[in-house]
Amino acid sequence: MTTPGEEMHALVERLYPLCRSITGDGVRATLDIVGEYVPLRVHEVPTGTQVLDWTVPQEWNIRDAYIADGSGRRVVDFAASSLHVLGYSVPVSARMPLAQLREHLHTLPEHPSWVPYRTSYYKPEWGFCLSQETLDAMPDGEYEVCVDSTLADGHLTYAEHVVPGQVADEVIVSCHVCHPSLANDNLAGIAVAVFLARALAERTPYYTYRFLFAPGTIGAITWLARNAERVERVAHGLVLACAGDPGRLTYKQSRRGDAEIDRVLAHVLTASGRPHHITEFTPYGYDERQFCSPGFDLGVGSLSRTPYAGYPEYHTSADNPDFVSPEAMADTLAVCREAFAVLDRNRRYVNLSPYGEPQLGRRGLYDSLGGRSDAKQAQMAMLWVLSLSDGEHTLLDVAERSGLPFDTVAAAADALRDAELIKA
Amino acid sequence: MTTPGEEMHALVERLYPLCRSITGDGVRATLDIVGEYVPLRVHEVPTGTQVLDWTVPQEWNIRDAYIADGSGRRVVDFAASSLHVLGYSVPVSARMPLAQLREHLHTLPEHPSWVPYRTSYYKPEWGFCLSQETLDAMPDGEYEVCVDSTLADGHLTYAEHVVPGQVADEVIVSCHVCHPSLANDNLAGIAVAVFLARALAERTPYYTYRFLFAPGTIGAITWLARNAERVERVAHGLVLACAGDPGRLTYKQSRRGDAEIDRVLAHVLTASGRPHHITEFTPYGYDERQFCSPGFDLGVGSLSRTPYAGYPEYHTSADNPDFVSPEAMADTLAVCREAFAVLDRNRRYVNLSPYGEPQLGRRGLYDSLGGRSDAKQAQMAMLWVLSLSDGEHTLLDVAERSGLPFDTVAAAADALRDAELIKA
Amino acid sequence: MTTPGEEMHALVERLYPLCRSITGDGVRATLDIVGEYVPLRVHEVPTGTQVLDWTVPQEWNIRDAYIADGSGRRVVDFAASSLHVLGYSVPVSARMPLAQLREHLHTLPEHPSWVPYRTSYYKPEWGFCLSQETLDAMPDGEYEVCVDSTLADGHLTYAEHVVPGQVADEVIVSCHVCHPSLANDNLAGIAVAVFLARALAERTPYYTYRFLFAPGTIGAITWLARNAERVERVAHGLVLACAGDPGRLTYKQSRRGDAEIDRVLAHVLTASGRPHHITEFTPYGYDERQFCSPGFDLGVGSLSRTPYAGYPEYHTSADNPDFVSPEAMADTLAVCREAFAVLDRNRRYVNLSPYGEPQLGRRGLYDSLGGRSDAKQAQMAMLWVLSLSDGEHTLLDVAERSGLPFDTVAAAADALRDAELIKA
Repeated sequence: MTTPGEEMHALVERLYPLCRSITGDGVRATLDIVGEYVPLRVHEVPTGTQVLDWTVPQEWNIRDAYIADGSGRRVVDFAASSLHVLGYSVPVSARMPLAQLREHLHTLPEHPSWVPYRTSYYKPEWGFCLSQETLDAMPDGEYEVCVDSTLADGHLTYAEHVVPGQVADEVIVSCHVCHPSLANDNLAGIAVAVFLARALAERTPYYTYRFLFAPGTIGAITWLARNAERVERVAHGLVLACAGDPGRLTYKQSRRGDAEIDRVLAHVLTASGRPHHITEFTPYGYDERQFCSPGFDLGVGSLSRTPYAGYPEYHTSADNPDFVSPEAMADTLAVCREAFAVLDRNRRYVNLSPYGEPQLGRRGLYDSLGGRSDAKQAQMAMLWVLSLSDGEHTLLDVAERSGLPFDTVAAAADALRDAELIKA
Repeated sequence: MTTPGEEMHALVERLYPLCRSITGDGVRATLDIVGEYVPLRVHEVPTGTQVLDWTVPQEWNIRDAYIADGSGRRVVDFAASSLHVLGYSVPVSARMPLAQLREHLHTLPEHPSWVPYRTSYYKPEWGFCLSQETLDAMPDGEYEVCVDSTLADGHLTYAEHVVPGQVADEVIVSCHVCHPSLANDNLAGIAVAVFLARALAERTPYYTYRFLFAPGTIGAITWLARNAERVERVAHGLVLACAGDPGRLTYKQSRRGDAEIDRVLAHVLTASGRPHHITEFTPYGYDERQFCSPGFDLGVGSLSRTPYAGYPEYHTSADNPDFVSPEAMADTLAVCREAFAVLDRNRRYVNLSPYGEPQLGRRGLYDSLGGRSDAKQAQMAMLWVLSLSDGEHTLLDVAERSGLPFDTVAAAADALRDAELIKA
Repeated sequence: MTTPGEEMHALVERLYPLCRSITGDGVRATLDIVGEYVPLRVHEVPTGTQVLDWTVPQEWNIRDAYIADGSGRRVVDFAASSLHVLGYSVPVSARMPLAQLREHLHTLPEHPSWVPYRTSYYKPEWGFCLSQETLDAMPDGEYEVCVDSTLADGHLTYAEHVVPGQVADEVIVSCHVCHPSLANDNLAGIAVAVFLARALAERTPYYTYRFLFAPGTIGAITWLARNAERVERVAHGLVLACAGDPGRLTYKQSRRGDAEIDRVLAHVLTASGRPHHITEFTPYGYDERQFCSPGFDLGVGSLSRTPYAGYPEYHTSADNPDFVSPEAMADTLAVCREAFAVLDRNRRYVNLSPYGEPQLGRRGLYDSLGGRSDAKQAQMAMLWVLSLSDGEHTLLDVAERSGLPFDTVAAAADALRDAELIKA
């Protein structure tokens, strides 16, 4: 028996070797694998398409890349790790002395055994990333360099998976699929999204949940540009990233700061007793930058464990599958499920008998509770729901003001709704 | 010479033996005694009358009740304490073994010498309340049980006392009169209300003060149902309960949380230096539940010493006249008087000379202060009242923002009003 | 080379000997000297003119005043200090024994070597202020007293200096010129105002800055009465007083408490790391009392070092030029300049590309930053400005929410405005 955590970790390991970028076959191969878990609708958007203030760039593909020494031995080889080549590197095939080659080499002197992750999407460059130790071991002399890549008109690829709900209002869950062999950033986020989608589909949720697997920045911008009408139906959203490292959970608020998703995540993280951080919105990070840009200003927050750039392994070869654990991903998944369970039941009700307390006893709402060990709490929850059901307060407000568990409050609301004492 | 505290305590002792319930002659006898102190208008509402979501129940009266052992000796006797019979107990006359009788007996094992207070208003039951010690001393065997009660169509009884004010806007002061031999809950509340009414009548107050002596829940609901138009004139209100125990004062806010009565009580309790608690509204407690139900949402708070269920003697025979003291009741009364003195003088004024400071000197407002030891404070109070008299701020706002005593602020406002520099 | 601090101190020393009051030639002589530094428009308002609730009083001038002992020796002499005579003292020429004279003498027993400052503007009195030591040394016997003053119809004098800005909206900077030989209160304030005006004129500011040199209370009231239309253009203001003592800076908020000037001063004082106090508005103090009266309710705060009456030297001969330092005045001046630099650049912008992030790279806004050491901060500032430029947030909001320096934020806004990505 494998646990969901182990299954997520296995997915991370499958996706890890692929060379993803903001376009290209690495993204397609990734979506093929994700599509084995949940059905995807894949979109291909041609190079040159105007998307908001941006233009879809040329597609980048790479077959091989290496640095070979005088003896022909590959001292740096793309086949060993997709990180070794500068992302979006232009093709090159040349011989040059080490001194000249050095201008195209990226290392991390402070972590001499690690390979950095570098890109140059919008400025034509070629380059290699390697460990400082490898570089130090390279004698002076001539080297052969080869990047067998193509930059040509093609497409930008992204995919959607939808869990239909009872209403057309949508919750968007977004994760970036453009990083190559980096596990926490963002294969763990992809894995949690996939298993979250499967969990939500177990019963029809209230909201329609739309999962977006797209390259960072340009992918979210492309989706927003092509879904102007749908955006108006996005009631809430969550960007998933860095979902598997050993650190505590971090929720970054939407730009609004008091959106319902912000309140739900704060409530769930606090009520669960998990150590966590809540941070205010900043216009830097992942695709919440686009969803929360002032023209959209959506209620979209971001859930991660240690946030981007907050751990030394960030954007290095040390962010490998060993860095993420089944337990951490399972914990991130559990919080997502708890949060969406609250979000899905959170309503504003109106008390239909608002003058004085309605007589609960004759409706069996006291009797039916009498035998239960949590009767007192259930009764208090009904009084609180009745008191605050004025069209202004949500059930989450009731839970927070009363100090009662959200589930107890929601169950009380269900009982009162069934007794026609409140209506949504 | 008796103090008001001693007079209130004497009233508690007179009322203590009566068997009150939500209806019946015990309530009437109670109101007869209260009527000796302040004139009452007594209302009788027939059984079956619809009142909001409720129906006035049958009237309950009881003449005798006991458990007698095989020798005919009464081991539990209603004549000794009105607590011994389950409130609203249906009549019974039977013989049964102790094992069967036990299902109808209520004790407090954790306080073996105390008798609990129990009721069953809306589910037909019979039963006795007794001390654990008494129960432990009852040998097995046959017992005779008798509850000589009647449950029949009749009336619900409540009373009003009004202190007419300068304006028709009302302050409602409510206390429940449905608890049998329990001193703090709520004979002390009744006593404080009575002496508060007498104190308010010493000079015509600004508001009209309406005192309501009614059974808990159903009494308040009945009053609200029969006074739909008057409710619109209820500007403020206070529910008095548990007014005589040795604990510190507790003010429970109205549902609004920022109603004027909430601010006044917080100000008076703080300014007086008394140790106290301020608690947020909860939809449980006394009749503030009804006045603050969302359809009414009145500015009605609740003043008590130790709140309901917050002391071990609550709803037991230990809540007897020894548990309440003249000093505690006098202190509760004093806070009510201080609070209503503030409430009665609290106004929003408009500065009639709002451009720059008016020249107070030529109006004698500086000179007249020159010889007084509090001249500086009085002068500052005038400047503060002028500054904040913009139609938005009340004198209580002025007192809180300036840190000056409310009385000083109100006196300054009187002087400025007399000089025609401000108007209400 | 003299520093601005030394120049301000030199101005204080020049102004110190003059006998200023709320009217009279001392004010005119003061304005003559100020006029050597910045051009002034001097206003003369006749005695009897109605100004708001007040009337311009008679003009007071004084040529000589003394107390001479039996030998004709002057034991108290106005020529030694303008403080020796009660402000607005009516003329007197008489001989009287010490016992009778004492009723007209003012001393400070707790500081026996200091001379107090006393006035009687609106009640006709004569009197002398002297040190307790001087009084103690005066033997019983006859004394000659002389106050050679005149109280007669004349004028109230005040002056304005304007630094024209790009817009007609005004910032008013006000300081009182009615105190005689007192250095901190308010010659230091006058000196800071003068050098602030000169600094602002170095380049055309955004706002038009109006400096008001007027007697306290009646001067501000007179200006307000005569400038009803201009008041509507007063966007912000600052009253300067007690600007040179060794204490930490104190900013007293406007009556509004959240006016832009309040936020700017709090930001600048905090961001600069200076120890400081922020105090809430009170309707006592200097001419903020008039500007913030509820009919005007202008966004005018007050900047001082130790506030009025907060230091023992206040209103005594110990508030002399030794009490104020070039360094303290230079520090006050610096804060004013920093604050007005923020105020002048603080704008609400609207993002013209609010849907997703605009592509900064193709506009050269990334490239141009690449080589700068503060590139990261400049880039973050652009993202923050874009994010919050929704017409609601000012650049100060951006600085405070982002934690970035205001200058960095304002520079980012300039770059974005030049790229036509935002507009004011």
